[in-house]
Amino acid sequence: MGDQYEVSEAGVAALTIPSLRWEEPPEGPVVVLLDQTRLPAEEVELVCTDVPALVQAIRTLAVRGAPLLGIAGAYGVALAAVRGFDVDEAVEALAQARPTAVNLGYGVRRAAAAYRAAAPDGPDAQAAAALAEARAVHAEDIEASARMAEHGLALLGELLPGGSHRILTHCNSGALVSGGEGTALAVALAAHRAGELRRLWVDETRPLLQGARLTAYEAARTGMAYTVLPDGAAGSLFAGGAVDAVLIGADRIAADGSVANKVGSYPLAVLARYHHVPFVVVAPTSTVDLETEEGSDIEVEQRPGQEVTEFSLPYAQGLGAEAGTGIPVAPLGAQAYNPAFDVTPAELVTAIVTEAGVVSPVTRNGLAEVCSTSRWSKSRSGNGMMAE
Amino acid sequence: MGDQYEVSEAGVAALTIPSLRWEEPPEGPVVVLLDQTRLPAEEVELVCTDVPALVQAIRTLAVRGAPLLGIAGAYGVALAAVRGFDVDEAVEALAQARPTAVNLGYGVRRAAAAYRAAAPDGPDAQAAAALAEARAVHAEDIEASARMAEHGLALLGELLPGGSHRILTHCNSGALVSGGEGTALAVALAAHRAGELRRLWVDETRPLLQGARLTAYEAARTGMAYTVLPDGAAGSLFAGGAVDAVLIGADRIAADGSVANKVGSYPLAVLARYHHVPFVVVAPTSTVDLETEEGSDIEVEQRPGQEVTEFSLPYAQGLGAEAGTGIPVAPLGAQAYNPAFDVTPAELVTAIVTEAGVVSPVTRNGLAEVCSTSRWSKSRSGNGMMAE
Repeated sequence: MGDQYEVSEAGVAALTIPSLRWEEPPEGPVVVLLDQTRLPAEEVELVCTDVPALVQAIRTLAVRGAPLLGIAGAYGVALAAVRGFDVDEAVEALAQARPTAVNLGYGVRRAAAAYRAAAPDGPDAQAAAALAEARAVHAEDIEASARMAEHGLALLGELLPGGSHRILTHCNSGALVSGGEGTALAVALAAHRAGELRRLWVDETRPLLQGARLTAYEAARTGMAYTVLPDGAAGSLFAGGAVDAVLIGADRIAADGSVANKVGSYPLAVLARYHHVPFVVVAPTSTVDLETEEGSDIEVEQRPGQEVTEFSLPYAQGLGAEAGTGIPVAPLGAQAYNPAFDVTPAELVTAIVTEAGVVSPVTRNGLAEVCSTSRWSKSRSGNGMMAE
Repeated sequence: MGDQYEVSEAGVAALTIPSLRWEEPPEGPVVVLLDQTRLPAEEVELVCTDVPALVQAIRTLAVRGAPLLGIAGAYGVALAAVRGFDVDEAVEALAQARPTAVNLGYGVRRAAAAYRAAAPDGPDAQAAAALAEARAVHAEDIEASARMAEHGLALLGELLPGGSHRILTHCNSGALVSGGEGTALAVALAAHRAGELRRLWVDETRPLLQGARLTAYEAARTGMAYTVLPDGAAGSLFAGGAVDAVLIGADRIAADGSVANKVGSYPLAVLARYHHVPFVVVAPTSTVDLETEEGSDIEVEQRPGQEVTEFSLPYAQGLGAEAGTGIPVAPLGAQAYNPAFDVTPAELVTAIVTEAGVVSPVTRNGLAEVCSTSRWSKSRSGNGMMAE
């Protein structure tokens, strides 16, 4: 079930190709990814037969998005186990592929714990356990996605009575980041299906344009009324009273409710506060990292400056995905500041929508509580992962 | 003198080619522009032999920036007069080439008024008068640029005692927008020469990347320590305490002190307020439009959506400047919201630096006062242009 693509209630396929699937023999065992760097121009599958290939796909953002990284990490461990590679090495490589997304490590640890727990039963049982756990992570994410959409839609109804919402989003948080329909974009899609979405404002999301490329792709496929804008134009929309709510995903949420998400999210939070517009974060509890006390403790990934100083798209001839092969935009030798994420403090977040419920106002206790009631929490403590 | 390129006090040429010059016969009469759409890759001159060519250069942003548009507009009228084209038609076409930049209309009106005032003396005298007025607009701008740099540097000293400023800027406001060294970037350059600039943070400025392409080009040429960033990453710099002041230019300032500038400026103003960082606007009094009462009265130019949904750079083969010839980034048929400017209300502006002095706090009266003491004001009333 987790390997099938999702068809919406309205019968519209969110994706023609699932963002990630596990393939059994004879084709497999392999992890098959929809290469997100090639969207929206091409729908190309990337077949990962080993962990280094998967790590590379994670690093180059062929596969991305917090929940999907969790699923990818779990299947990566399963892949190593099933194919008889060094599982400890795989765990290490996968967990370190990207530093900010907590879900990646979470998925890796769950599959690794299942693998280790089955040690007494021998390698085959261990591999089967790792794969079963990866499938469980995948299935839970699909379920979590549906629950977040439900809770988020109800919250929008409370915050903005009367429907006809104009929602601003940043980066991509839909079916491409998830086994299901995603996080923030799943809420917008639920509003669309309920006839309550008037307009989806899509920040293009520089430097890698996940908004213009991926969110627009998903919005177009699902028939949402959407408009792309340069990130800097969001201020004009707020000033013109054209934004009813901001909905974004998260890559890591600290115990104090600080939210790390794609760079450019924090300025939206400040604008939303200034204009008295709700700023809502949608993320599964697996994105909450209770071990990270505060926002300032979150390590923010710094990415290559060439993503800013050069323009490159892998699907445009001659515009390679490799740094240094794009079209120079800035003068030769220009330095760039290119953090992948920023951190929004809890006081600027109106609500955090999880699969286990809504935290609002966002407090340390409220967050801990919703995590303790989630299925993820149970599997977390069951696997003793919080000690890691 | 206005036609020579400027050499800084440190002996560093800000530009190898002046951003705009008037050329006499035999080459002329023509207006020669540095084609800014081709920077930083190529330094190409664009020779405008008639007004439609100049209007096209203005529309495609080959020539851009508020003060420079005023100079271009004035020379455009002179070009029509000297070459014997229909001057009224030229005035109309030039004034409407871009709606938001007040300086464009200002330069056009000054040259047109001089042309009309010389009517009793015949066409040759009229043409000479229009050209003399255009040269005066040009020379005054060079002078204004130097005064703004002086006042701005003094203001920075007051606001940020101790020097070593980390200044964030948006779009381009240097020698490329001016007969002289520009507006906001001229202040940063003055700080650099005074040994007081620690870092120039350069917003890349989507969609047309005037920051990454043009400000970085000027910063590199003048030896400033600079770093380019995606517009959305500015929030992280503020949050990290890495911005001491924001310096931007302006395209139109209303009588109430509201500032229209490149889209993305307003979010910086909100961030600056939230982080208690000075937000300083640098513009000649010719940018102040006392006839526009309030910010909401400013007409904001909407530009083609393809600037957002496609990537194009005229200097990259196959990436034409014409809309529709770039590399698609968003899905086919995607709509884009692409205002060229946004409007920052006076209450978010710490100071407006003009050639005639600094307005701080920014009030209607303070602004009117500084305008009444400026040379521009004298020529304005002398030509009766405020009645238009």
